[in-house]
Amino acid sequence: MDFYQQYDAHLSADERDHVATARAFCAGAFSESVLAAHMAGEAFPEKWITEWAALGMLGLQAKRAHGGLEASYLCKIRVAQEMARHGFAAAFCLNHHQGGATRLSQTGTPIQIERLMQPALRGELLLTTAMTEPAGGSDVSALTTTAVLVDGGWALSGTKAWMTDGLLVGGLIVLARVGDAAGAGDIASFYVPFGEAETVKRSEIVVPGARSFRLAEVTFDAHFIPEWCLIAAPGAALKASMTSVNAARVHVAAMCIATLHAALSEAVDYCEGRQAFGKALTGHQGLRWELAEVSVRLEAANSLVFRAAEQIQTGGNPVALAAQAKKFAVDTALWGIDQCVRIVGATGASAAHRLNMHFAEVRMAAYADGTNEMLLDRVGRGLSTTYPKSIP
Amino acid sequence: MDFYQQYDAHLSADERDHVATARAFCAGAFSESVLAAHMAGEAFPEKWITEWAALGMLGLQAKRAHGGLEASYLCKIRVAQEMARHGFAAAFCLNHHQGGATRLSQTGTPIQIERLMQPALRGELLLTTAMTEPAGGSDVSALTTTAVLVDGGWALSGTKAWMTDGLLVGGLIVLARVGDAAGAGDIASFYVPFGEAETVKRSEIVVPGARSFRLAEVTFDAHFIPEWCLIAAPGAALKASMTSVNAARVHVAAMCIATLHAALSEAVDYCEGRQAFGKALTGHQGLRWELAEVSVRLEAANSLVFRAAEQIQTGGNPVALAAQAKKFAVDTALWGIDQCVRIVGATGASAAHRLNMHFAEVRMAAYADGTNEMLLDRVGRGLSTTYPKSIP
Amino acid sequence: MDFYQQYDAHLSADERDHVATARAFCAGAFSESVLAAHMAGEAFPEKWITEWAALGMLGLQAKRAHGGLEASYLCKIRVAQEMARHGFAAAFCLNHHQGGATRLSQTGTPIQIERLMQPALRGELLLTTAMTEPAGGSDVSALTTTAVLVDGGWALSGTKAWMTDGLLVGGLIVLARVGDAAGAGDIASFYVPFGEAETVKRSEIVVPGARSFRLAEVTFDAHFIPEWCLIAAPGAALKASMTSVNAARVHVAAMCIATLHAALSEAVDYCEGRQAFGKALTGHQGLRWELAEVSVRLEAANSLVFRAAEQIQTGGNPVALAAQAKKFAVDTALWGIDQCVRIVGATGASAAHRLNMHFAEVRMAAYADGTNEMLLDRVGRGLSTTYPKSIP
Amino acid sequence: MDFYQQYDAHLSADERDHVATARAFCAGAFSESVLAAHMAGEAFPEKWITEWAALGMLGLQAKRAHGGLEASYLCKIRVAQEMARHGFAAAFCLNHHQGGATRLSQTGTPIQIERLMQPALRGELLLTTAMTEPAGGSDVSALTTTAVLVDGGWALSGTKAWMTDGLLVGGLIVLARVGDAAGAGDIASFYVPFGEAETVKRSEIVVPGARSFRLAEVTFDAHFIPEWCLIAAPGAALKASMTSVNAARVHVAAMCIATLHAALSEAVDYCEGRQAFGKALTGHQGLRWELAEVSVRLEAANSLVFRAAEQIQTGGNPVALAAQAKKFAVDTALWGIDQCVRIVGATGASAAHRLNMHFAEVRMAAYADGTNEMLLDRVGRGLSTTYPKSIP
Repeated sequence: MDFYQQYDAHLSADERDHVATARAFCAGAFSESVLAAHMAGEAFPEKWITEWAALGMLGLQAKRAHGGLEASYLCKIRVAQEMARHGFAAAFCLNHHQGGATRLSQTGTPIQIERLMQPALRGELLLTTAMTEPAGGSDVSALTTTAVLVDGGWALSGTKAWMTDGLLVGGLIVLARVGDAAGAGDIASFYVPFGEAETVKRSEIVVPGARSFRLAEVTFDAHFIPEWCLIAAPGAALKASMTSVNAARVHVAAMCIATLHAALSEAVDYCEGRQAFGKALTGHQGLRWELAEVSVRLEAANSLVFRAAEQIQTGGNPVALAAQAKKFAVDTALWGIDQCVRIVGATGASAAHRLNMHFAEVRMAAYADGTNEMLLDRVGRGLSTTYPKSIP
Repeated sequence: MDFYQQYDAHLSADERDHVATARAFCAGAFSESVLAAHMAGEAFPEKWITEWAALGMLGLQAKRAHGGLEASYLCKIRVAQEMARHGFAAAFCLNHHQGGATRLSQTGTPIQIERLMQPALRGELLLTTAMTEPAGGSDVSALTTTAVLVDGGWALSGTKAWMTDGLLVGGLIVLARVGDAAGAGDIASFYVPFGEAETVKRSEIVVPGARSFRLAEVTFDAHFIPEWCLIAAPGAALKASMTSVNAARVHVAAMCIATLHAALSEAVDYCEGRQAFGKALTGHQGLRWELAEVSVRLEAANSLVFRAAEQIQTGGNPVALAAQAKKFAVDTALWGIDQCVRIVGATGASAAHRLNMHFAEVRMAAYADGTNEMLLDRVGRGLSTTYPKSIP
Repeated sequence: MDFYQQYDAHLSADERDHVATARAFCAGAFSESVLAAHMAGEAFPEKWITEWAALGMLGLQAKRAHGGLEASYLCKIRVAQEMARHGFAAAFCLNHHQGGATRLSQTGTPIQIERLMQPALRGELLLTTAMTEPAGGSDVSALTTTAVLVDGGWALSGTKAWMTDGLLVGGLIVLARVGDAAGAGDIASFYVPFGEAETVKRSEIVVPGARSFRLAEVTFDAHFIPEWCLIAAPGAALKASMTSVNAARVHVAAMCIATLHAALSEAVDYCEGRQAFGKALTGHQGLRWELAEVSVRLEAANSLVFRAAEQIQTGGNPVALAAQAKKFAVDTALWGIDQCVRIVGATGASAAHRLNMHFAEVRMAAYADGTNEMLLDRVGRGLSTTYPKSIP
Repeated sequence: MDFYQQYDAHLSADERDHVATARAFCAGAFSESVLAAHMAGEAFPEKWITEWAALGMLGLQAKRAHGGLEASYLCKIRVAQEMARHGFAAAFCLNHHQGGATRLSQTGTPIQIERLMQPALRGELLLTTAMTEPAGGSDVSALTTTAVLVDGGWALSGTKAWMTDGLLVGGLIVLARVGDAAGAGDIASFYVPFGEAETVKRSEIVVPGARSFRLAEVTFDAHFIPEWCLIAAPGAALKASMTSVNAARVHVAAMCIATLHAALSEAVDYCEGRQAFGKALTGHQGLRWELAEVSVRLEAANSLVFRAAEQIQTGGNPVALAAQAKKFAVDTALWGIDQCVRIVGATGASAAHRLNMHFAEVRMAAYADGTNEMLLDRVGRGLSTTYPKSIP
C-alpha cells in the first residue's frame, strides 16, 4: 500500500489498527449505502454515525481519561482518508463531529466534559462549529451574531449559515459578539445546545449532489445559553479558532487526495476492462496518457499534503505550507476526478460508478477552511518571508 | 446585444422574431420552473414541451408545406441559445425533438410525413435518434442491434442506451443491422414507434444533477417495425447519420457558449452586489481578474463557434472546424461555469443561483456527438491536410 | 488557404495583391536570413528594411497623396501576418515603422509631411513611439520626461526605454511633460529627430534570443526639438495615443496567431516525416492529440482576433474585445509554440527548425501594448457593462 | 532554510559541509560569470570546471579508495541544486561529469580506473554518455552505431547526437551494436577516448540560449577502441544503462526545482521593491496571487521529488514515481519560471535578471532522460499495478 506509506511509517501499532478498523468498516455495507443515498438525491443514513461512534471513532483524538483513543494527527488523517475513499461528504461530516469531541476533551471545563463528553462520543450529541454568517462569508470582522448578558447566561441572536451536518447537530460551537464594540476583540465562543427550544430555527441549504453534508442555516432569536457553556472569553475566541485552521486545512486536503486516489483506481480498473475499437481503453495511448497525467498530479498532491501533515504532527504550525497544500489538493482533486469521470465516459456519471458522487461532494471542499482566494492571499502576504532573496 | 451580434446580422426579420419569441418564453415562468425541478432532483415539467411546440418551435426547420417555419441553421442556433441560458438540459432535449421533426420533414416518405409529422410538431410524438449501445459506446462498427425481415416489416432486437429524453419519447430513430454480415455496409435506419408494445422495455439511466435529460436505456425484443418505417436502406444509414454530425457538434457547442455567457453574467452581477472586507467582490483585483479570464476564453469560444456555424449555414461541412469548435466550447464552458460557481462561493452551489444547475447539465455535453477523445482523434488524423507546410 | 479566409473576403483586389507581394518577399531569401541571424545571436540584417520599403510596404496605410497605398486595417494585418510566419521580430519592427509613417501621413502638419514623409517611406528615417520609461513601466501617470520651452522649440530631458528597433531609428515620437504640474493634462508629443546630436545617448537592452527587436534605451539631455516637430499639444497627447491602442493590440495578436500557425505547420510536417518505434510520430495517438489540441486553441484565437479586427475595420473601437483578443492570442501563441518545440523534440530547438526563434521572439509580444495584467484589469473594470445581467 | 529541510535531515555532517562548500562556491564569482556568458550568447567559461573539480566535487560519489567523497544520493542532489540556483546548464554539465566519474569508480575495471580515474576527478578528462543518435531519437531499438572486432579492440562507426558538454569531453561512454543482428541483445558499451584521432569529428548543435550545454554531434569513422575500454559486454549494456535511469530522472527533477525556487525568490524580491500605480507590485492582489500560485506548485514539486529521491536513497528503484516526479518537476519549472519572467515584466528578460537564462536553460531538461511523452507512456503502462482497484 505504497500510496500512504509515508504516513504509515509514523503510526503506532494501535494507530495502524485504527486505520485497519476504519478501512474494514468503510469497505462494508457503508460503501454501497452512501452511494445509493447519493443516487437517490438523499443524505447518507444517520445510522452510520452511530455505528462509527460505536467503533470509538468519534473519540479518536479525545483523551483516554474521557474515553477517547488519543490517536495522533497523522492517524486521524489516515482514518478519515479511508472513509473519504468511499464517500467524501460522510468523511467530512464524521470528522467534524470527531473534531468537536476532541476540542471538548482538550479545552472543555469539567462541567462541560461531564455533561457533553459521553453523548458526543456516542454520536448522540453531534457538535459542529458555526462561524460563517449569510452576509459576511469568510470575513470574520463582519460578524454580527450577538450574545447579550442575561440572568444566568446569555441571549444569543443572529444567523449562522453553511453548517456541516447542520440538520443533525444537537448543538453548535458559536462565535458571537459580546458587548457592542465593532472590533473583533469582543468575540466570544460558546457551546449552544438546541434542545427543543423555539428560539432556534433551522432549514436546509439544498445543494443538489451534496445532500450528505446536510448543510443548514440556523437562526437564533434570543436563544438562552447557560453560563457553563462559555468556551472562550471575549477577546480569546478568534485566536483560538485560528490556531487550529492550519491543521484543518491539511486535513481536508488529505481527504481530497484519498478520494481522488480512489477515483483514479476506479477509472483505471474500468478502462482496463472496457473494449473499444478492438482493444482495452488503456490500450489507446492518448487516453492512457490522460490517466497517467492524473496520477502525476495526484502523487505531487499526496507528497505535499504529507509534508504539511508531518510538520503539524511534530508540533509545527505551517501557515504557508498548509494553505499551499489545501489549494493544490483541492485543485488537483477537482480536476482529477473530473478527468476520471470524463475518461470513463457517460457511464462514469451513472450509478455504475462512484465518480459522479465523488465529483459532486469534493466540490464542497473548496469552501471549507478557506477558499482558493483566501489561501492565495494568505500565501501571497508571506511570500517575501517564505522565499527570501538570499538564503542564509 | 453585442455577444450574439455576428449571428444576428445573418438572420431574416422573421428569424429575428423567432429568436425574440424564444427569449420571451424562456425568460418567463419556464426559467424558474426548470431551476426548481433541478433543485428538487427532478426532470423539468413535461408541459413546457407542449407550450414550446405551441409556439411552432419544434417545426423551426421543418418545411412550410408541412407546417414548419423553414428557419435557417443560424436561427436554430440562436433559438436554442436563448433556452440554454436558462436551462441547458431543456434546450438540449427540445432541440433533439426539433431535429427529429426536421429530419422527418426533409427526408421522410409521404406516408411517414402523413402519419408522423403533425404529432411531431405538436410535441405529442417525441422522436430521438438511438445509435449508442451499452457495450459499444461510440464505436459504430460494434453495433449489435438487429432487424430481421418478417412478414410486413422487421423484428427489432437489441438495446440502445443513453437516449436523450428517452423516458418521454414515443418512438426512436434506430440504427440496426439487417442481415448477418459483420461489416457496417448492412446497417439500416428506421422509425420505431413504441405504442403500448410489450416488446419494448425502457428504464432511466439516473445521473444525479442531470435528470432533466431523462436519459434512458431501451431494450427491444423482436419488436415489430412496419415496412413504411424504413428511413435509410441497408448500407446508406451510416453515411446519412454522419452527414449531419458536424452541424450537430457546432449546435451543441453554441448552446454551451450561451449557458456560460449566462453564468458569467450571473456571477458578475452577484460579485458587483456582494460586499467583503469593505468593498464589492469585483473591487478585489484577484477575483476581478479571474472573472475577466473567464470572459476572455468565452469570447474566443463564441468566435470560433460562430465561424464554424457560418460555414455550415453557407453550405460547408467543416469536419475539422466543427470538431475543434465543439472541443473548445465544451472545455471552456465546463471550466468557465466551474470558475463562476467557485468565485461566487458556496452560495453559488445553492438554490440562490442557477450556476449549480448549469454546471451539472453542461457536463453531459461532453458526451454528445463525440467525446473530447473522439474529436481530438478526428482533428489529429487530418492535421497534415488542414495545416500543410507550404501554404499555396 | 482556409485559415485566413475570413480576412481575405474583406480585401480589395489591390489589397490581395499586397498580401501576395508580401508573401512572396517573406518566403524568399528573407526567410533564411532572419533565421540565420537568430541562430548567430544577431539582429536580422538592415537591408531587409530597405527592400521592404522598396515594395512600398512602409506606406501601406499612408495616403496616396503622400505616396502611400491607403490599404485597410485588415490588409495591414494580413501583410504583417505573412512576415510573422517567417520572423515575428522583423514583422513587429517593420510594422512599427509602417505605423509611424501612417501616423505622420494622417496627422502630420504640412511641414512635417514635407520634411519627413519620403524618408520615412523609403526606410531611411525610421520612427517609433517612445512612451515607456525605466522607472514607470506602463504607468503613464508616472511619466517624468520633460520638454522645457526654449528659443525656437523645446529642450527634452529624460530617458525612454524598451524602444522597438531603438538601435536603428532616426527619430522618436516622444511623450513628455511640458510645464511642471504633476497631472497628465500637460503631456505633449513630438517628433524628435536625433541627427548627430551629442544630447542623445542610446544603448541596447540585450535580450538573448530577441536581438532582432534591437531594443534600446535612449537618454536625452536638454536635446533640442524645433517648433515644427510638435505633434499633439499639451493635454491632447495622451488621448491621441490611447485612441490607437485597441487597433495596436489586435494587430499584435494577429501576428502572434500567424507565427503559431506557421509553427504548427512546421511541427506537423516534421512529425509526419519522422519515424519512431516503427511508425511516423503522428502515428502515435498521444502525440497526435497534443498537436490537435494546439490546433483547437489556434483556431479559437484566430476567430477571436478576426472578430476584433473586423470591428476595428468597420469603425468600431472595441476596448474589451481588443484586450481579450490580445490576452488570448499571446497566451495561446506562447503555449502553442512551446508545445510544438517540445513535441518536435530537442531538434526543434536547433537550427534545423524555426521553432526556437518563434518561441523566443513571440515572448516579447507579451510586453507590447499592455501586459496580461494590464489587459485583465482593463477587461475586469468593464465586466458589468460588457456582461449585464439582463440582456435587453 | 525550510525549503530543503526534508533533504538536510538525511545528510551526514560531512555531507552538509559539501553542500555548504558548493553553496559558497556557486554564490561567488561563478554566479556572475555564467550569467555574463549567457547574455553574450556564449557557453560558461571552462575554468569553472577545473575549480569545481579542485573542490573534489567531480568525485562526490566516487569511492574514497579512488579519491572520491562517497557522498550519498541525497547529498549529490543538494550539491547540484546549489549550482542549479545560479545556472542550470552548468549544474547539469558538471553533474554529468561527476556521474561519469562515479560510474567509473563503481563499475570500472582496475585498468580503467588506473588510467582514467584521476584525470576524471581533476576535470582533465571529461566523460559523458552517448546513447541518442540523429535518426533514432530515444528509440534504442533503432540504434545503428557499430563496433566491429578488429585486432586489439573494436572499430567504431556511427554518429551520436545531443551530447552534453560534447564540445569539451575527452571521451564518451558509447552504446554500440557488436555483430550484425537487429535485436538489442548484442549492444555493448565502451569508454571511447578521443585523443587527436582523425577518425572522430564533432560539431556543435547550436541552441540559442543554451550554449552552456555545449551540445555536440560526434561522428566516428572506424575509430579504434582498445580492448581495455569495454564496459558492458554485448547483451548487458542496455540493462546497465536502464538501471540508473530512475535516479537520473529524479536528479534532473531536483535541479529543476532548485532553479525555479531561485527564480521565484528573485521575482518576489523584485516585486517587493518595484513601485507601480502608487504601491509595490506585490501590493497588487492579482499579481500577488500569481506569485503565490507559483509557490503552490513549486512546493508540490519539491515534495514529490523528495519522496522519489528518498526512495532511491534507501535502495528503492521507483519506476513510476521517478517518471512522475520528472514529468511534474519539468512542467512546473518551465511554467513557473515563465510566470516569473512575465510577472517581472520586460526587464525580467534582460541582463538585470537571471530569469531569461533560467528559462532558456531549463527547457533542455525536458529532453534529458525521457521526454514528457516517454514518461507518460512509462507511467501509463503500469497504471493498473500502481493503482489497483482493491487496496489490500
